[in-house]
Amino acid sequence: MTVSDRWLLPDGVEDILPPLAGQIESLRRDVMDTCQRWGYQLVIPPLIEYLESLFTGTGHDLELQTFKLTDQLTGRMMGVRADMTPQAARIDAHTLGQEGITRLCYAGHVLHTRPKHMLTGRTPIQAGCELFGSASESADLEVISLMLEALRVAGLPHVHLDLAHVSIYESLIGEAEFDRDTSAAIFDAMARKSVPELDRLLGDCPAGSAGARLRELARVSGGPEALAEARRILSGASDNLSAALDQLGRVAEMLERDFPEVSFGFDFCELRGYNYHTGLVFAAYVPGHGDSVAKGGRYDAIGSDFGRARPATGFSLDIRALVTLGERSVSGSKAVWAPAGDDAALEQVVSELRMTETVVRALPEDSGVDPSTRGCDRKLVKQGDDWVVQTLS
Amino acid sequence: MTVSDRWLLPDGVEDILPPLAGQIESLRRDVMDTCQRWGYQLVIPPLIEYLESLFTGTGHDLELQTFKLTDQLTGRMMGVRADMTPQAARIDAHTLGQEGITRLCYAGHVLHTRPKHMLTGRTPIQAGCELFGSASESADLEVISLMLEALRVAGLPHVHLDLAHVSIYESLIGEAEFDRDTSAAIFDAMARKSVPELDRLLGDCPAGSAGARLRELARVSGGPEALAEARRILSGASDNLSAALDQLGRVAEMLERDFPEVSFGFDFCELRGYNYHTGLVFAAYVPGHGDSVAKGGRYDAIGSDFGRARPATGFSLDIRALVTLGERSVSGSKAVWAPAGDDAALEQVVSELRMTETVVRALPEDSGVDPSTRGCDRKLVKQGDDWVVQTLS
Repeated sequence: MTVSDRWLLPDGVEDILPPLAGQIESLRRDVMDTCQRWGYQLVIPPLIEYLESLFTGTGHDLELQTFKLTDQLTGRMMGVRADMTPQAARIDAHTLGQEGITRLCYAGHVLHTRPKHMLTGRTPIQAGCELFGSASESADLEVISLMLEALRVAGLPHVHLDLAHVSIYESLIGEAEFDRDTSAAIFDAMARKSVPELDRLLGDCPAGSAGARLRELARVSGGPEALAEARRILSGASDNLSAALDQLGRVAEMLERDFPEVSFGFDFCELRGYNYHTGLVFAAYVPGHGDSVAKGGRYDAIGSDFGRARPATGFSLDIRALVTLGERSVSGSKAVWAPAGDDAALEQVVSELRMTETVVRALPEDSGVDPSTRGCDRKLVKQGDDWVVQTLS
Repeated sequence: MTVSDRWLLPDGVEDILPPLAGQIESLRRDVMDTCQRWGYQLVIPPLIEYLESLFTGTGHDLELQTFKLTDQLTGRMMGVRADMTPQAARIDAHTLGQEGITRLCYAGHVLHTRPKHMLTGRTPIQAGCELFGSASESADLEVISLMLEALRVAGLPHVHLDLAHVSIYESLIGEAEFDRDTSAAIFDAMARKSVPELDRLLGDCPAGSAGARLRELARVSGGPEALAEARRILSGASDNLSAALDQLGRVAEMLERDFPEVSFGFDFCELRGYNYHTGLVFAAYVPGHGDSVAKGGRYDAIGSDFGRARPATGFSLDIRALVTLGERSVSGSKAVWAPAGDDAALEQVVSELRMTETVVRALPEDSGVDPSTRGCDRKLVKQGDDWVVQTLS
């Protein structure tokens, strides 16, 4: 690498410059403040941990996404976090170890070995909330409502929320008793929503069998009519399947009341990116952007990985992507230009102004500079003995 | 690793829990807001870069401190940032590429292979400001003043500021023309302030020679009397040495006027941790804590590593350490407890309260819970048709 390209950044890695950096900081603060006003307490999980602590649940997605490091102090393998949800679950299960309901929120960089999508690259800024200790539907509702509230804060227009239930797939695949290779192939095809592949894998299953139901369900998604169709496909199946459908219906109804501007849909076999989830899951989309902008769901199993089983649900989102997709008004406030020089009265005025305003101080190199090219719309000028703020002409 | 110790964290890596996490977030915001009101614009440099971009200047400290990763997309070596100052310099020199003065600030996690000291561990939260494009003493003054202002915001009592000038050492060691091994040994002994070793290495230098002056200077530090002593030792030496001493004197005098609560000292051969610095450098200390709490200085050479030479000065500090050492008042505001249940009027009151207050919503598992154990000092109760806020008895 020559001197001239030492500034090259790796693919999917970027410098975030003004004014975008300020907009990201502002949304990060507003989202965190919203979470805290709902009773979620801020935690700061570490950037690195031992690999065993970072990987949890099924699926290898997290493992593939995680950068590995050698700990020079112990020689053991560590990883840079690729997802903060398992960290929050570890903190709840072990570090905090509180009885009863615990609500946590966080925001910070995570690192991915490969970019998931263009907007986030390999260094997304993940923010999220997690609610531990409640298996109730109210907890699911609270977390989804808070996520939709955060998207409102981000100024996202036309949000669509997909609701799904991981236990529907789990239950049917368990009942069908396929061999391991077939199960893995079905999971894979289902995650990619490849209908032809599912037809090939499940085409021979007799009508009314778990396999046939899976194949039918994979084609169903949409609004209330999709829920009715799923009920038809699963009629006569086990009670927990109809309970899952009932829950999806109830939750959608409650949310429709509070978020009339959001459109709702159901997707019964959504598996993409739900690595450790166990129950009701959800993902928010905006038009023109294929990937979800926020997602989450129930994951009652992670706590036991850290020695304490805890019901849990939560969501996370990428602040960087939301700033690009949202329509938040940008603050128009500009700065005041103060001349160079050593004048005690000027110093005094500058420090008073800086309680509430941005004041840019001229330096010797600034002689002849037009302050408006430095983000200023006013300047300090001396009138008689006083320094006053004047609008730039 | 068994399930039971999957929660173990590596040495020097910690979970930051409530309420400490909230205090860190609050100081981070206040420091960033202060920097922005002085005209410094926020940038968000990436967590990872190619190794060549992260290492700059002399000295191997940064290289030793940096965790290395393989980029799976290209097979090239990347590093997790151990210091954000060179990143800001790269952004100024290349990404922004503005003419004239550029002021940047940033805050974020950095990662160190080994803990520098106990309070920060291996994952400090670095915040800082960098001023590019001015070689003037006013720029040095502005940056030091802003750093002292940030320490004021952090509520640090009894700050002591040490001023030094890297060019004094550079100039004398250049003049002395030692061989490379001896120079390296002197640098090492000087950085550790090992007087016996310096006596051994420099004891044979004739009086008045550069080597003898170095040896004498290493023993001198303290207030104005130290500056006078340094003038005596360097009398008759080259002009740039007396210019450096003059600058130290002037800057200290100006700062004393604006920061009467800070004590000032001089240390003429301070080299510790100044990897890429070239001129006036400074470090702030508080009683009872051996390491500096904030430091910085002039580094006019980094820009040219990225293709554009730029005069530069700046400072950085560790937010995590400042929260521990500072005496900031902690906000005492507590939350409002809202009962469970589906009541449209209650929903309405809760969302209105949440514009300004924290409201914790009860979940089914909360029956019988004392709200005061959940950080609440008030609760919502129904009186007639209305929901009102009542103080917890």
